[in-house]
Amino acid sequence: MADTHTGQQTLIDVLAQAPKNWGRWGEDDEIGALNFLDAAEALRGVAQVTSGKVFTLGVPIGAPGGDPVWPGRSGATRLMTQDRSHYTAGKLQPLPGGLEYADDYITAFLQGSSQYDALGHTWYGDEIYNGFAAETTTGGLARCGVDKIARHGIVGRGVLVDIARHRGKESLESGETFGVGDLEAAADAQGVALESHDNLLIRTGWLKVFYDHGAEAFYGEQFVEPGLTYSPELVDWFHQREIVSLSTDSIANEVTVHAETGIALPLHAALMRNLGVLFSEILWLEELAADCADDGQWSFLYAAAPINIVGGTGAPVNPVVVK
Amino acid sequence: MADTHTGQQTLIDVLAQAPKNWGRWGEDDEIGALNFLDAAEALRGVAQVTSGKVFTLGVPIGAPGGDPVWPGRSGATRLMTQDRSHYTAGKLQPLPGGLEYADDYITAFLQGSSQYDALGHTWYGDEIYNGFAAETTTGGLARCGVDKIARHGIVGRGVLVDIARHRGKESLESGETFGVGDLEAAADAQGVALESHDNLLIRTGWLKVFYDHGAEAFYGEQFVEPGLTYSPELVDWFHQREIVSLSTDSIANEVTVHAETGIALPLHAALMRNLGVLFSEILWLEELAADCADDGQWSFLYAAAPINIVGGTGAPVNPVVVK
Amino acid sequence: MADTHTGQQTLIDVLAQAPKNWGRWGEDDEIGALNFLDAAEALRGVAQVTSGKVFTLGVPIGAPGGDPVWPGRSGATRLMTQDRSHYTAGKLQPLPGGLEYADDYITAFLQGSSQYDALGHTWYGDEIYNGFAAETTTGGLARCGVDKIARHGIVGRGVLVDIARHRGKESLESGETFGVGDLEAAADAQGVALESHDNLLIRTGWLKVFYDHGAEAFYGEQFVEPGLTYSPELVDWFHQREIVSLSTDSIANEVTVHAETGIALPLHAALMRNLGVLFSEILWLEELAADCADDGQWSFLYAAAPINIVGGTGAPVNPVVVK
Amino acid sequence: MADTHTGQQTLIDVLAQAPKNWGRWGEDDEIGALNFLDAAEALRGVAQVTSGKVFTLGVPIGAPGGDPVWPGRSGATRLMTQDRSHYTAGKLQPLPGGLEYADDYITAFLQGSSQYDALGHTWYGDEIYNGFAAETTTGGLARCGVDKIARHGIVGRGVLVDIARHRGKESLESGETFGVGDLEAAADAQGVALESHDNLLIRTGWLKVFYDHGAEAFYGEQFVEPGLTYSPELVDWFHQREIVSLSTDSIANEVTVHAETGIALPLHAALMRNLGVLFSEILWLEELAADCADDGQWSFLYAAAPINIVGGTGAPVNPVVVK
Repeated sequence: MADTHTGQQTLIDVLAQAPKNWGRWGEDDEIGALNFLDAAEALRGVAQVTSGKVFTLGVPIGAPGGDPVWPGRSGATRLMTQDRSHYTAGKLQPLPGGLEYADDYITAFLQGSSQYDALGHTWYGDEIYNGFAAETTTGGLARCGVDKIARHGIVGRGVLVDIARHRGKESLESGETFGVGDLEAAADAQGVALESHDNLLIRTGWLKVFYDHGAEAFYGEQFVEPGLTYSPELVDWFHQREIVSLSTDSIANEVTVHAETGIALPLHAALMRNLGVLFSEILWLEELAADCADDGQWSFLYAAAPINIVGGTGAPVNPVVVK
Repeated sequence: MADTHTGQQTLIDVLAQAPKNWGRWGEDDEIGALNFLDAAEALRGVAQVTSGKVFTLGVPIGAPGGDPVWPGRSGATRLMTQDRSHYTAGKLQPLPGGLEYADDYITAFLQGSSQYDALGHTWYGDEIYNGFAAETTTGGLARCGVDKIARHGIVGRGVLVDIARHRGKESLESGETFGVGDLEAAADAQGVALESHDNLLIRTGWLKVFYDHGAEAFYGEQFVEPGLTYSPELVDWFHQREIVSLSTDSIANEVTVHAETGIALPLHAALMRNLGVLFSEILWLEELAADCADDGQWSFLYAAAPINIVGGTGAPVNPVVVK
Repeated sequence: MADTHTGQQTLIDVLAQAPKNWGRWGEDDEIGALNFLDAAEALRGVAQVTSGKVFTLGVPIGAPGGDPVWPGRSGATRLMTQDRSHYTAGKLQPLPGGLEYADDYITAFLQGSSQYDALGHTWYGDEIYNGFAAETTTGGLARCGVDKIARHGIVGRGVLVDIARHRGKESLESGETFGVGDLEAAADAQGVALESHDNLLIRTGWLKVFYDHGAEAFYGEQFVEPGLTYSPELVDWFHQREIVSLSTDSIANEVTVHAETGIALPLHAALMRNLGVLFSEILWLEELAADCADDGQWSFLYAAAPINIVGGTGAPVNPVVVK
Repeated sequence: MADTHTGQQTLIDVLAQAPKNWGRWGEDDEIGALNFLDAAEALRGVAQVTSGKVFTLGVPIGAPGGDPVWPGRSGATRLMTQDRSHYTAGKLQPLPGGLEYADDYITAFLQGSSQYDALGHTWYGDEIYNGFAAETTTGGLARCGVDKIARHGIVGRGVLVDIARHRGKESLESGETFGVGDLEAAADAQGVALESHDNLLIRTGWLKVFYDHGAEAFYGEQFVEPGLTYSPELVDWFHQREIVSLSTDSIANEVTVHAETGIALPLHAALMRNLGVLFSEILWLEELAADCADDGQWSFLYAAAPINIVGGTGAPVNPVVVK
């Protein structure tokens, strides 16, 4: 990264006065803002449903054209352990009575597709969310693993804010940013309120660049995503609204580098590590957004649960939306 | 398997007169009974919600004590690509500003934990569901892959039938069976109706054997699960009720071998391949069942979507239940 | 590939009169020209040794800068299952007495680094080497797997022909070719004879492009390697000399496309599939070549054995040369 | 393990006076006793050759009946990425001209088959061989990785000592031990001298238990291998003879627990970590031993090089023996 600012400002400095939810739900808490999502919030989510239209938000995994990933990760490899050809070639016999079956196997980065970050996925200083030692991540997340999220599930009211549509663009551009004012303005324009304990979905159109224009256009010479950008006001807004989760159609849910300080991914620090806000990333929002624009309903029941990987830093998910 | 019956009766013979849904939703259909789940059914599912209690049904993946799998498969292996120790040892540098992160990687059978079978997962004769050639499974499911299910999602009314509790057992025993009469009797005793287009969940307590008593007790000398057993009446019942999906807390959703004919897994043939009924397997139903027994509410909103593996024979899932 | 010739000429046409060793060592033979390497040839190899200098030819696997691979394959991923950090973090206890250990795991294409091709790796028509059905490759090589080579080992006289040095170049250029006349001329200039039953190593300098100039320079817009190019004379020369094995510092041991016919990789067909000549690829020849140029000794004991992968299409190897 | 002795004696105590080769070849040395193997030793190895008979020592990897591994590891999984069936099913097109090919992929523990341990694989206290910090193993061996061995190769005189044959047994029994006196006695009986700078191969027949009698007989209720057992005299013998490498047909090259102290695997500490002796394990010695018994020649050229895994804790190998 072009980090001309490095060495000048750090997360420790910048977030010295920032709010934290550590201890708010006890010293053993590992699910953070997910604690807000109780039965009443599930009912509030269910109350959004009007038409019964269903959307799933998981991107394809192991697509022929490749999968969009954070640099350093790679897409999944899916391989057959058996299929029809094994029977035809005489290498497998049908089960008694004649049943045959195909089976497959995968190697994948756990954060190489639509996924929830575990709360212990990122940190600064020596501590992850709730003050657990960063060493607890060694060899697997002994604390704040994604299995804790998987067992709870995320069921509540979801709201989609379509920044790309609000700006009249197909996709935001590399490095393009927006803040809390933009979120409010876009929601206002959509006619939807952002409420306490919401699960916030933001559409940037960024993943479309990968699928419509290819990997070269997506990664560029230097991979810089568009997205939400850090400000103390933004952090306070998440804190006071008690936002449960942030989900976007980009790899990292925020602009890659904060322009003023040169700090990379400060919202992972301020929202996830300090406030315990859940991040889910690499979601496919195109059909949902088009439908919301069409019927004017931007809030819905949001029901998601990452797969239950013990100690995982994250896990794949295919969130369900019911309008 | 002890298949003394082999060579005597085959699926082709036994299911010669059995109902099929092939062509019912067009010759290109790849989702079968999931077609029943339209917006109205999603609303019917939502209408079950009363208290807002949420349950997730995915078993742990990569548990320290191992994961229960079908013989020939193995549990997932999760490995760190980086964690705190890499920073401490000086092998990684924090991002500009100080953020550090942990990341991980998995190798796994796609059907090695809570999962949906793709409709093309099993077949007999030369055709999978809807008459597509079995050759379409070669190298990956060109037809009826689990991605088709992933994109649709499964949202509707779910009903739990607790056979183990009905029989006053912690867990059914290896090889123990039940049929349509038992389902109806148990549902009656629970005071819940099994309705058209339901997503049927059945508790056998079988997975508890693995987690409570260990792998040796679970697999035994010869792996024989308890479960639903084939009869023409059972198939007709699924057909006439237009049951969308069958989910259980066992590896294969049915007794391993049909006693009368010696045929292995005939319901995979009769329900999945012929009728297009969705199977999800290896689900954790203990807390849900205990709660249902407690409050007497056995129906609920069932919202699930397997992860979106392109061409997969199956895919992990963590279903969400809202009561 | 730019295959303007496609559809005009095929391997079946072009190699209609080409020699075959099928049946020469019996109808069950799975090791082809490796049959030439008997004990007498091992002694001939040993007889080349003069100074005791040792070279190993395997390229790094899992190098930080990536590994050079054929398009469609990817480099190996090596991950720790445990290391010192697990003990420090209290996640592992030392063995009784205090021993600790590190362990790791790999995912890799079997032909993603220095490797031997199995004789069943490539074919045309419906048959692999020795007339076995191409179907025997389904799900793993039931015939002519790399394990057959692994069990025999390749021990004999090796000769290095340094085409790059002969042409006064650091590396041959993309698409640059050479034939049997060039091999003979270069060997003459080196003062070494190419003899019957030799293991032929050819240096093109091509792998250096990857390591010295990076992936972009190596792959280019269209991946076209330099290398040996097909001619009937070349095939006859291999046949009459009874060459045992061909090894180079390129991915595929031959120019990617035969210019006159547009056929891709015809030597895989003419030499490996028809004659049973062993191919080993992606070897590192720089130090060996420099030493040979220095001391004028271009022949040596060549001792190699790929790892013993049952049914593998190929397997990694780290060949040993003793001069 | 039955470690009734734990807490009483540790490697630090027991090996307090034991010899070390740290610093002997400089403070940057990462190959230990392999330094003994210079060109003169390669010539000495070559000088053993009389008949030209060749043996390879690598066990099958991915065998249908499973591979023998240390508890906690698992055998390799080999999967096709493509084969003939993909062409038949129309999912792949032949290359221009008609060439087709099969390709495969593996997931494996690097020490899950015949392999060389890296010198940094095991340690006690805070240091690996030559005093490098144990932290250098974090995330991969920055020091004393198996790539250092791979680049050097192991070429010299090898000697086989057949303890099982000497004791008139097919295989040693679980927990059965032998020491330096037994080695000398067996070598004497064989009529072969154990010389300075030898590569020592020891046959116990233990792997035969796995292949002949199955996994249950091999692993038992508690996995305890037979093997060489620690004594100060044994360590001195290795030190004074300047033995380069120790190779056996067992998983760990030594008896699992030292009976007198209860310490696990003390020779990994005394020989590998302190003296820099190379360990290669899980070798197949049956045919070689039978031949040596037959012709009375127990010494030979030993030429091996593990595959070149960067930073690996170990790497697969298929050693070559020429008699």
